[in-house]
Amino acid sequence: MYKTEIELTGHLIDTQLLSRVIDEITDLGGEFEVLDTTIGKTRDDVSWARLEVRASSCDKLDRIVKAAVALGAVTVDAEEVKLGEVKKDGVCPEGFYSSTNLETFVNVGGTWVEVENIEMDCAVVVDPVAKRARCCPIGSVRAGEMVILGSGGVRVASAPASDEDSGEFSFMGSDVSSERQKFLVLRELAEEMKRIRARGGKILVVAGPAVIHTGAAKHLSKLIDAGYVNVFFAGNAVAVHDVEAAFFGTSLGVNLNDGTAAPAGHMHHLMAINRIRDHGGLRQAVEAGALTSGVMYSLIKNDVPYVLAGSIRDDGPLPDVITDTVKAQEAMRSHLPGVELAVMIATMLHSIATGNLLPARVRTICVDINPATVTKLADRGSHQAIGIVSDVEWFLKELASLLVGEAVGQVAGA
Amino acid sequence: MYKTEIELTGHLIDTQLLSRVIDEITDLGGEFEVLDTTIGKTRDDVSWARLEVRASSCDKLDRIVKAAVALGAVTVDAEEVKLGEVKKDGVCPEGFYSSTNLETFVNVGGTWVEVENIEMDCAVVVDPVAKRARCCPIGSVRAGEMVILGSGGVRVASAPASDEDSGEFSFMGSDVSSERQKFLVLRELAEEMKRIRARGGKILVVAGPAVIHTGAAKHLSKLIDAGYVNVFFAGNAVAVHDVEAAFFGTSLGVNLNDGTAAPAGHMHHLMAINRIRDHGGLRQAVEAGALTSGVMYSLIKNDVPYVLAGSIRDDGPLPDVITDTVKAQEAMRSHLPGVELAVMIATMLHSIATGNLLPARVRTICVDINPATVTKLADRGSHQAIGIVSDVEWFLKELASLLVGEAVGQVAGA
Amino acid sequence: MYKTEIELTGHLIDTQLLSRVIDEITDLGGEFEVLDTTIGKTRDDVSWARLEVRASSCDKLDRIVKAAVALGAVTVDAEEVKLGEVKKDGVCPEGFYSSTNLETFVNVGGTWVEVENIEMDCAVVVDPVAKRARCCPIGSVRAGEMVILGSGGVRVASAPASDEDSGEFSFMGSDVSSERQKFLVLRELAEEMKRIRARGGKILVVAGPAVIHTGAAKHLSKLIDAGYVNVFFAGNAVAVHDVEAAFFGTSLGVNLNDGTAAPAGHMHHLMAINRIRDHGGLRQAVEAGALTSGVMYSLIKNDVPYVLAGSIRDDGPLPDVITDTVKAQEAMRSHLPGVELAVMIATMLHSIATGNLLPARVRTICVDINPATVTKLADRGSHQAIGIVSDVEWFLKELASLLVGEAVGQVAGA
Amino acid sequence: MYKTEIELTGHLIDTQLLSRVIDEITDLGGEFEVLDTTIGKTRDDVSWARLEVRASSCDKLDRIVKAAVALGAVTVDAEEVKLGEVKKDGVCPEGFYSSTNLETFVNVGGTWVEVENIEMDCAVVVDPVAKRARCCPIGSVRAGEMVILGSGGVRVASAPASDEDSGEFSFMGSDVSSERQKFLVLRELAEEMKRIRARGGKILVVAGPAVIHTGAAKHLSKLIDAGYVNVFFAGNAVAVHDVEAAFFGTSLGVNLNDGTAAPAGHMHHLMAINRIRDHGGLRQAVEAGALTSGVMYSLIKNDVPYVLAGSIRDDGPLPDVITDTVKAQEAMRSHLPGVELAVMIATMLHSIATGNLLPARVRTICVDINPATVTKLADRGSHQAIGIVSDVEWFLKELASLLVGEAVGQVAGA
Repeated sequence: MYKTEIELTGHLIDTQLLSRVIDEITDLGGEFEVLDTTIGKTRDDVSWARLEVRASSCDKLDRIVKAAVALGAVTVDAEEVKLGEVKKDGVCPEGFYSSTNLETFVNVGGTWVEVENIEMDCAVVVDPVAKRARCCPIGSVRAGEMVILGSGGVRVASAPASDEDSGEFSFMGSDVSSERQKFLVLRELAEEMKRIRARGGKILVVAGPAVIHTGAAKHLSKLIDAGYVNVFFAGNAVAVHDVEAAFFGTSLGVNLNDGTAAPAGHMHHLMAINRIRDHGGLRQAVEAGALTSGVMYSLIKNDVPYVLAGSIRDDGPLPDVITDTVKAQEAMRSHLPGVELAVMIATMLHSIATGNLLPARVRTICVDINPATVTKLADRGSHQAIGIVSDVEWFLKELASLLVGEAVGQVAGA
Repeated sequence: MYKTEIELTGHLIDTQLLSRVIDEITDLGGEFEVLDTTIGKTRDDVSWARLEVRASSCDKLDRIVKAAVALGAVTVDAEEVKLGEVKKDGVCPEGFYSSTNLETFVNVGGTWVEVENIEMDCAVVVDPVAKRARCCPIGSVRAGEMVILGSGGVRVASAPASDEDSGEFSFMGSDVSSERQKFLVLRELAEEMKRIRARGGKILVVAGPAVIHTGAAKHLSKLIDAGYVNVFFAGNAVAVHDVEAAFFGTSLGVNLNDGTAAPAGHMHHLMAINRIRDHGGLRQAVEAGALTSGVMYSLIKNDVPYVLAGSIRDDGPLPDVITDTVKAQEAMRSHLPGVELAVMIATMLHSIATGNLLPARVRTICVDINPATVTKLADRGSHQAIGIVSDVEWFLKELASLLVGEAVGQVAGA
Repeated sequence: MYKTEIELTGHLIDTQLLSRVIDEITDLGGEFEVLDTTIGKTRDDVSWARLEVRASSCDKLDRIVKAAVALGAVTVDAEEVKLGEVKKDGVCPEGFYSSTNLETFVNVGGTWVEVENIEMDCAVVVDPVAKRARCCPIGSVRAGEMVILGSGGVRVASAPASDEDSGEFSFMGSDVSSERQKFLVLRELAEEMKRIRARGGKILVVAGPAVIHTGAAKHLSKLIDAGYVNVFFAGNAVAVHDVEAAFFGTSLGVNLNDGTAAPAGHMHHLMAINRIRDHGGLRQAVEAGALTSGVMYSLIKNDVPYVLAGSIRDDGPLPDVITDTVKAQEAMRSHLPGVELAVMIATMLHSIATGNLLPARVRTICVDINPATVTKLADRGSHQAIGIVSDVEWFLKELASLLVGEAVGQVAGA
Repeated sequence: MYKTEIELTGHLIDTQLLSRVIDEITDLGGEFEVLDTTIGKTRDDVSWARLEVRASSCDKLDRIVKAAVALGAVTVDAEEVKLGEVKKDGVCPEGFYSSTNLETFVNVGGTWVEVENIEMDCAVVVDPVAKRARCCPIGSVRAGEMVILGSGGVRVASAPASDEDSGEFSFMGSDVSSERQKFLVLRELAEEMKRIRARGGKILVVAGPAVIHTGAAKHLSKLIDAGYVNVFFAGNAVAVHDVEAAFFGTSLGVNLNDGTAAPAGHMHHLMAINRIRDHGGLRQAVEAGALTSGVMYSLIKNDVPYVLAGSIRDDGPLPDVITDTVKAQEAMRSHLPGVELAVMIATMLHSIATGNLLPARVRTICVDINPATVTKLADRGSHQAIGIVSDVEWFLKELASLLVGEAVGQVAGA
């Protein structure tokens, strides 16, 4: 929903100016609210009114405002964006505008153009000739580029743009209560995943190591094999424990088939890292026939792109891990175009990092047994995130069961 | 495991006293640790040693200590319990002994007798003639009764007594981590429940309202129907929302079949209470054919005894609720004999209250999505509680699936 | 804020009907929003509009609606309440209206009268002759009384009524974030407490046992002595551990002056209960000179009324505890008139129970180190609750320091 | 405490072998436990016993074992470490030993040498000629180096080595309960910090952004100025919001002096980053007179070394941030020698990362309002961590008050 304010002054009632403006707004599919009025005491006094006008697209809003202006209304945000030149690589001019993750239009030379690659906390680089605008992390601006200064001439959608099927994926608000029927939410999610796969959209999965520790990797592998995971973000630990499970049947030294501690099992993860380092990387280990199961194996076998981003907690790390955090962000960004749904499972660091990069329009499901993870994600600006406070193990098991169909039986019979 | 300390003094090494005592202890199946020694500097000096002796039963320990005493050892806790007379109903003499929930023996006139109805934080009433001892809440002692003073002559097991099948129900310690494979724990629990049902033991279920809100009531009903719930403790809210679901298809006003809010649904729970009050109680509503589904219906239909204990949060309450908390405790106590397993689901108040009443030997599983509930239970003295940090909905669904077999399919197809 | 809807039909624009109605609404201090319109295609077609009208009091709204009706508007909620007779004590007629905790007016014979003793989840008993209405728990209605059926003729404020000083006590929304400067919130709270004390208002404190375990009792006692606590609600445990501290210097057996475990300290709380039972109650123990410090002592000495409500977790309990939960609710209710601020500290059970009884207009501060307590309180309908995720010990210490002034120095020097 | 096992075989009782060995162990200051015995049925049968022997240092244990061996005992872990050669940089030979964070001795050519730079999850590189051993992350081993294989010949302390003042810093176990008197813990911590400063030891502080958001930066600055912070680890966010506070008086856009949201305040942190980038770094900004307050300013002014480690959540980042996570780990490692106390405040990522690098003997205090952070730290192997579940704001305020003495007054009067 886009909005702006207009003002009316004059003999509003006698001249029917207010009535006619209201008529026009509603005729053109807009909504309005009278924010403030000063009504003249006598017939001859001048009245004044301020209205908020809302429309579902920036375009529609433009048409309404123009019609109102034609009737005598005055618009408030007609100004164009102000631009400032970048003088030094990686440094913006003071007063630069920083973006939100909501659809944004900017007034460049009288035309409202959409900001490309929308992402929160970026500068907006404008090409005034081509009339294009795009988000750019402040560390990546280059000398000579023009970035927006101040917030004049910027129109930000007040919520993710609705599209045709929005009604189908409604959930119970952005609630993170744990006292709800998660099965209902899960069913909606599964339906949405089916629709996205059917239309060739991309689903991003972001995962933390609990996926492996809880033994849920086999369910995730099923989803990968069935084409429900199109991009995968994680850290070193997920891959390490996944490989540990493939090599030793343990995760953090605990046997996944019976929950007992393996003798000297605490060394397994280092042995797993070491072995993959010896191969030169995960793909090489798969190609050498050494790594034959697990989430990473499924991703590689199905040619699903993945980004393993480094953190200072990492052991090893695996050769596949991008240890430079700025480069890791870039790698993550490069896989986002086309993503329609992000499913974040049991990881606060990677969920927040991914949330920072995602446009608000990308539906985001955050599954964690700790409600604080979901709350933090929303606090950090990813308001579109829907939280499911739940067991990772059972969430993935049920999801695989709904989408692939055999998971339940297999586990129950395991 | 029971333990006591003995002391040896003399020419320990020359006389082989220490060796012979150690020999005796191990011969009789005991264990020992040398806690402290003073070894004489010369052959002629007297040495001294203090040993902790341990045995798996109070009886065995007695035999060992007697054998050691025969060899010259001195025992430390041979004294008899001291008794004091209750002068006023509900008031114990100063210095009275207060119990733990572990198996306890007390030395009454030279005989070690087991304390009956063991429960933490009670006085121990002794009948010196009959040589019997039993736990009694301090508010329930009666003038003229004799209670134990001090802790002399009291032997407390250091951990729940082991029995034959203990190895089969081992879990992963008393861990409350959420990063584990819960399915493995669940499978062990299901096996244990089968064994208890098979041998005619009693299983107690203690539940909070989340069981109803999450839509898990149908799984719990299956377990009741299949004979896996033999006693049931809850509060007013569980029964209220269960009845609300039976009457209106909602829990707290939320439709259980699609998660949407029912119009004026926030009034449903009061309407449900009112209707049951009109019938005079839950059983009457079942008999009248008005209440035909839900957890309470299943309990009544299967003649499973239940205690609904009042709390100051209650609306209504239902006529079945015992509003006096002391009487509610008494009602709960009366159902505990024979209980071998307590499964506590999503309720802190009722879990702790039940934990207060249970002997430590009763296996206790506490399922909650909030780790704090489990931690609090253990902090309050119920160290035997094993925590499962998990979704109530999925916990009960899987458990019903493992024990009754159809739950998964039904829900997946729902 | 009260609201209702009105509809306009006719030649809205030609006749200036819409303009004149808008003029009237704003002239009378109301606000409005056009919810829906059907504008006739030609000059001769009839147009239609639906407006939501809002005003800060039920009275003002009435005047506005009457003025609009005089101009030709049609009002939607003009109907009177429907009443049904109670046939059986403690049972309402089907379809009875259940209350919220917001200021509510009901249309009795054409007059809007305020519902007295407003409390959530109650029936509303109406005296049609005296034109009075009051909340009544459903278990307390008596045969022959008339209660409201359905929601026709009921107007509920959309938020707590504002008063003059509302601006002064603004806080940072109903946020429960722990990453904020609590000192700022605390300062506002202290100012509000000073204002309430100055004007003779009542402050209610609801406390859990952590107040005692953390050693914060001395700070609370200071606030009591200084007149900042005018009513006190708690459970058995608070009083027990408070008395334990007074008698033995321990809380749950831990020495409060150095944090070490006292020998046999786990028996202290039972000994404390027993001793008070021997005296016949807390007041008697104070009068006998046996209890000379602690929170309960301060309350008794300063004649501050308190309610100790029983729960099934209780040991003992103390003779002062009201063990019947329905009677405990009644006792709590009887102390609420005049309460302007409720400070709830570290107790989920008593906070929710009190929240159930409080009108929404009573400012409520909920202090707990666990964010879930605050969230649950709001979920259960006490939306006015402002959460402070914080240490109880330091919260009370700072508050005492701000209000009484010496706390900090004393403790630092302790 | 170090331990090993010895075995005795023969006519244990007749020959007094067992007695004499026990005599020797206790004479030399050791402790023992008889783990298992087979006592011959007749005088002529051979008996057998297995004892665990414990001593407070590896040296003492050695002396005891040698004495026991002289009497006829057989020792179990006399073997030397096995070594394997590194064939490829960053890859260890299969079966390599991975370290714990506890003091460790390894038997190199018959001599027990201590492993230097002890750190968990590392390989141990041995120089057999110089008889030295050191921990080395597996990614840092170089071809040609020798690393330990298997766990033979390795003796690991069972708990951090005690030193002279251990009794003075006892706390209440490694408890994370929030229902305790934190002031007592805090007082002990303050005393320990005074002792460490007095003897020239190093104190490491690891901090998360809540330190800034809660307004606690001023208290931390006081501690830095007074010499109580000797090394500082954090991430980009801490420095960013600290600089934001210095430049704009806000943290995440919220005014620190009154808790209100600053207009367009959400842009402040990016503006702060941009300005520091323009200066070229934090130190340059201080030198230019642009940055004149805050935690980073205090560190730079007092020449306290700091490491800002990058993460994929970072905006900017500041030029001072080490974006490569492996290099950041190396930088952190380089500052650890000499650290005697680590105080970790409100950060899970940096706490765990630092915990991974610290020897177990370094006392570690972890302060967080979320008990899960402390639990995770201990789960990840940093068992020495003592948790304080507390407000960061009040923790630092009280600590500064105890150590510097003016904090309380200043804030109370602010």
